[in-house]
Amino acid sequence: MLVMAGLGLYDELDVTLKTVEFAKKVDKIYAEFYTAILTGTTIEKIEKTLQKEITVLNREKVEYETNKLIEEAKEKDIMFLTAGDPMVATTHVDIAVEARKKGIEVIILNAPSIYSAIGITGLQLYKFGKTTSIVFPEPNYFPETPYDVIKDNLSLGYHTLCLLDIQTDKQKFMTANEGLSVLLEIEEKRKEKIIDENTKVLVVARAGSIKPGLFYGKIKDLIKHDFGTPLHCVIILGKLHFMETDALKYLFENI
Amino acid sequence: MLVMAGLGLYDELDVTLKTVEFAKKVDKIYAEFYTAILTGTTIEKIEKTLQKEITVLNREKVEYETNKLIEEAKEKDIMFLTAGDPMVATTHVDIAVEARKKGIEVIILNAPSIYSAIGITGLQLYKFGKTTSIVFPEPNYFPETPYDVIKDNLSLGYHTLCLLDIQTDKQKFMTANEGLSVLLEIEEKRKEKIIDENTKVLVVARAGSIKPGLFYGKIKDLIKHDFGTPLHCVIILGKLHFMETDALKYLFENI
Repeated sequence: MLVMAGLGLYDELDVTLKTVEFAKKVDKIYAEFYTAILTGTTIEKIEKTLQKEITVLNREKVEYETNKLIEEAKEKDIMFLTAGDPMVATTHVDIAVEARKKGIEVIILNAPSIYSAIGITGLQLYKFGKTTSIVFPEPNYFPETPYDVIKDNLSLGYHTLCLLDIQTDKQKFMTANEGLSVLLEIEEKRKEKIIDENTKVLVVARAGSIKPGLFYGKIKDLIKHDFGTPLHCVIILGKLHFMETDALKYLFENI
Repeated sequence: MLVMAGLGLYDELDVTLKTVEFAKKVDKIYAEFYTAILTGTTIEKIEKTLQKEITVLNREKVEYETNKLIEEAKEKDIMFLTAGDPMVATTHVDIAVEARKKGIEVIILNAPSIYSAIGITGLQLYKFGKTTSIVFPEPNYFPETPYDVIKDNLSLGYHTLCLLDIQTDKQKFMTANEGLSVLLEIEEKRKEKIIDENTKVLVVARAGSIKPGLFYGKIKDLIKHDFGTPLHCVIILGKLHFMETDALKYLFENI
């Protein structure tokens, strides 16, 4: 049996009781922290919470290691832990599908996810369109996808959640400042007037923690602001309902 | 202090350890189950899990009662429990905003939500567009909103999550069969060829439970199928990636 369980967003207390119960019963626990991480805790604290040792998968050997994990799940009860809610990253879906192909029972234990945690903004969650990711630009790789997604979403009045690049092997987490710079740089190239430095957007820092940072302001002001430790994300606003405007006023630090 | 905490999706074990910790410390716990419910548990079981009595708010007196709750939070530490992740229903955002207007500290404790739990389908979560709700039609009230949302989302290749009506006071939970009938009925009126009985869609039953039902097939076949106990939801497919097609094949009961 393969139990895919989420660790939630921030620290070791974000797992559900169901995951704690299953952790007690399984034979072995694996975890991966290359698709996402929890910045408010450590492996040791998670191990203490679940009262079991955790084997962390190595990104370099991921294909070999996930195959091994699936093989083991044929005979034993294996738990696979990931940050957030499981089955959000494509690589986790792939593991579940491969396990099912081999006739292994797969149980999924849900956990808090950034996809609903952004409800803390007071924005109406159902009004979010497609989600996009802003990645660290490289000399020969500067994807403009976020720009296209924002453009499409805005055409229908939808909000856009922009997730920011995580390179755990290098301990690099894109800040909202960097993310906003990337967006302005794409606008500079495309010149389709989707956003500019006077566009008012949201920055959410440390979602899932007890004191997340919520910031609202013009890009030119936000880009100079210190949002504190990661993870950050950026939200581009679609058409606002008056109750959403009220939420921005009272729940946010207006920059 | 007002602590808004989510109960997750299905049973009393879907709360996080953080919510359990806070429940021990607060002076009083309120809950509401009119915007959504957990079908796999009872108030008594939740009380036992949190080791504290829970006062359930009455829908008829909701305005009076939430005002009272906010007033109490000025002096005491009050926890407000809701199904799913908090701040997803507009009414919860309203409570948080009102509390902040009165200078009350608001802490939000996240929990599993249907918005990310649909990751169990293997569909790529970032590709979902705006979410819609299908409601029980009434003689003078038959909103076509779901049809417009699906149409808009399809124009961009986005998937659409259709939540189904919950009328807890009448213990009425719309089944996927009823939801699909409503969609076909709107198509019958509008005739814009957005969906028809041969359109292949997904039905998810009891998301968040250990054995959720995952069904894939043509509307005409699904509409006759028994999906078991509620809650159900329906997903209209946008443009599929081959890995998503693979997931539908291996994770779903193909009807």
